[in-house]
Amino acid sequence: MLRVGAPHAAFAAMSTAFDSAAFRKALGSFATGVTIITCRGADGKPLGLTVNSFNSVSLNPPLVLWSLAHNSLSLAAFRAARYFAVHVLAADQEELSVRFARRGADKFAGLALETGIGELPLLTGCSARFQCRSAYQYEGGDHIIFLGEVLSFDRSDAPPLVFHGGRYAHATRRDPPGVRPRRSWLAGSFGEDFLGYLLGRSHFRFFAQIREFLRAEQLGDEEFYVLSTLTLKPLTSEEELKIGLAGVLDGEATRTLARLTERGYVRVAPVTAEDPGIFYELTDAGRACALRLISAAKAVEENVLEQLGAGEAPALKSLLNRLLAVIDPASGALWGNERERRP
Amino acid sequence: MLRVGAPHAAFAAMSTAFDSAAFRKALGSFATGVTIITCRGADGKPLGLTVNSFNSVSLNPPLVLWSLAHNSLSLAAFRAARYFAVHVLAADQEELSVRFARRGADKFAGLALETGIGELPLLTGCSARFQCRSAYQYEGGDHIIFLGEVLSFDRSDAPPLVFHGGRYAHATRRDPPGVRPRRSWLAGSFGEDFLGYLLGRSHFRFFAQIREFLRAEQLGDEEFYVLSTLTLKPLTSEEELKIGLAGVLDGEATRTLARLTERGYVRVAPVTAEDPGIFYELTDAGRACALRLISAAKAVEENVLEQLGAGEAPALKSLLNRLLAVIDPASGALWGNERERRP
Repeated sequence: MLRVGAPHAAFAAMSTAFDSAAFRKALGSFATGVTIITCRGADGKPLGLTVNSFNSVSLNPPLVLWSLAHNSLSLAAFRAARYFAVHVLAADQEELSVRFARRGADKFAGLALETGIGELPLLTGCSARFQCRSAYQYEGGDHIIFLGEVLSFDRSDAPPLVFHGGRYAHATRRDPPGVRPRRSWLAGSFGEDFLGYLLGRSHFRFFAQIREFLRAEQLGDEEFYVLSTLTLKPLTSEEELKIGLAGVLDGEATRTLARLTERGYVRVAPVTAEDPGIFYELTDAGRACALRLISAAKAVEENVLEQLGAGEAPALKSLLNRLLAVIDPASGALWGNERERRP
Repeated sequence: MLRVGAPHAAFAAMSTAFDSAAFRKALGSFATGVTIITCRGADGKPLGLTVNSFNSVSLNPPLVLWSLAHNSLSLAAFRAARYFAVHVLAADQEELSVRFARRGADKFAGLALETGIGELPLLTGCSARFQCRSAYQYEGGDHIIFLGEVLSFDRSDAPPLVFHGGRYAHATRRDPPGVRPRRSWLAGSFGEDFLGYLLGRSHFRFFAQIREFLRAEQLGDEEFYVLSTLTLKPLTSEEELKIGLAGVLDGEATRTLARLTERGYVRVAPVTAEDPGIFYELTDAGRACALRLISAAKAVEENVLEQLGAGEAPALKSLLNRLLAVIDPASGALWGNERERRP
């Protein structure tokens, strides 16, 4: 193996005139994917580490590069290895990334491994894999730059794991620059990119697909909201319902509870000495009905998310959750097991 | 300038045994930020190109790298340049990225430039900038790898432009692995990550902030929906309103139009010979009221999005738009200028 590069002394003359934490933070502005690089050690054991300094170099010949710190415990093994494998991690492999970023421990314990060229240990479920001949090693300050000639590769459509600003991130595709939101003819009015429009329309259109199942059960929107809320919190007071469903049920809570009680789906839970309040709970029939509807709603969700795409669904949910943290300080009222169901 | 590396002949012996389009696609699985690298040509003119093969190498000394194709028109200038600058692009700089990815033309025309070390042309508005001394050049197949010693850098909190799978992307932060959505105590019931819950709650909580302005105008939800829809389409039939607001207004369209007409906010547009249908339009008072409410709603939006963060807002909107493309085929009915307002 050829090792070329500037003598290390040449770099030693340079000095970091600036704060290295700040430098690190500035470098973190550049988003990257996340890879795990593996090789087979001289003792036959698989080695691997999480690396985001990977990048492509050349198409013909096919070359990629990554770099490894001089003080890495795995340096000697990678310098000696004839082959290494680059695994570009998928969005759902964050735990794998964390595992291989730690020192020591048996990183491969319990993992399904495949065997590649020259006994390379190959991980599964990645976005892409490159099996490389270790072609060149260049000096790069406190790192060695490894160039690999790609001998074999494979890829999947799995969405990528992304690292940015020192944190893991989702990548979601942008609209092409030509796509502009529709605008009203009336200056000052809404455009199609108004968040309230997008949220309202998304909610109403999504809920419209669930509503047909409600109609089949002869239930209205409010009744579904109350039924499903009662599945979140086993014993719920009318006041909690009103807080949890503020802006949804306004003025209708009492009437909706009455209708559901009459229908035999909801009842007032027996009063106990310890907790003398009035709490509502689902009857067996109410619980069965709620679960039927929830199951139908989940099927609607699954179908919608499948069309939206595997990469976009978790990002959308995560962003909506973050939005709720901003606009919905009372969301806690809907959830919780603090009150035990009484027999 | 030291130039080191393997003799190029060593690479020539390698051959691409595989399809280079497929290889390119596999490389595209690794997400990257996007940079523009600039230098000053020997003739004093600024040069620049879009590059995503950038990565960090070393902290001490501070080194970064990127690579440039042998057949690039700018290669000679970059090989000769003593300094180069790396600009990590922000999410709103996609057009700049496209501009600097094209060959020829005066890429710098009309851009605000700053001047850096050694007369380096510096672009503004980036996520980070690194001014480098061109330290080493290594052979990398059909590319040259440039190593720069970072002499100076700056950064901002601007969210990044990301490239993945041959397309531009948003990066949005993931929830930390420890954060798990709340689950119902009842198996089979909803979790906090059910899309319908997230959409409904987001809509209702967002709308709750607008509702106070409606109340001040003594208007209900339905009346606001109709008023704002009439600002989207100048002349609207009752049928179009029903289609556009299906699932929102159900059964209330006629009554809501009547209430708004009585209030003097909506009227039936004069019938013309060319278009004898019955169309509703806003009166001057109705338009003024709608614009007051829309202005208040936009202020609510601005406040919410500011709290959500500059990087997340465009990603959320883009994802909701994509969701609507899946669940809302009829959204076109709400928009359009196909019918001219008559005097």
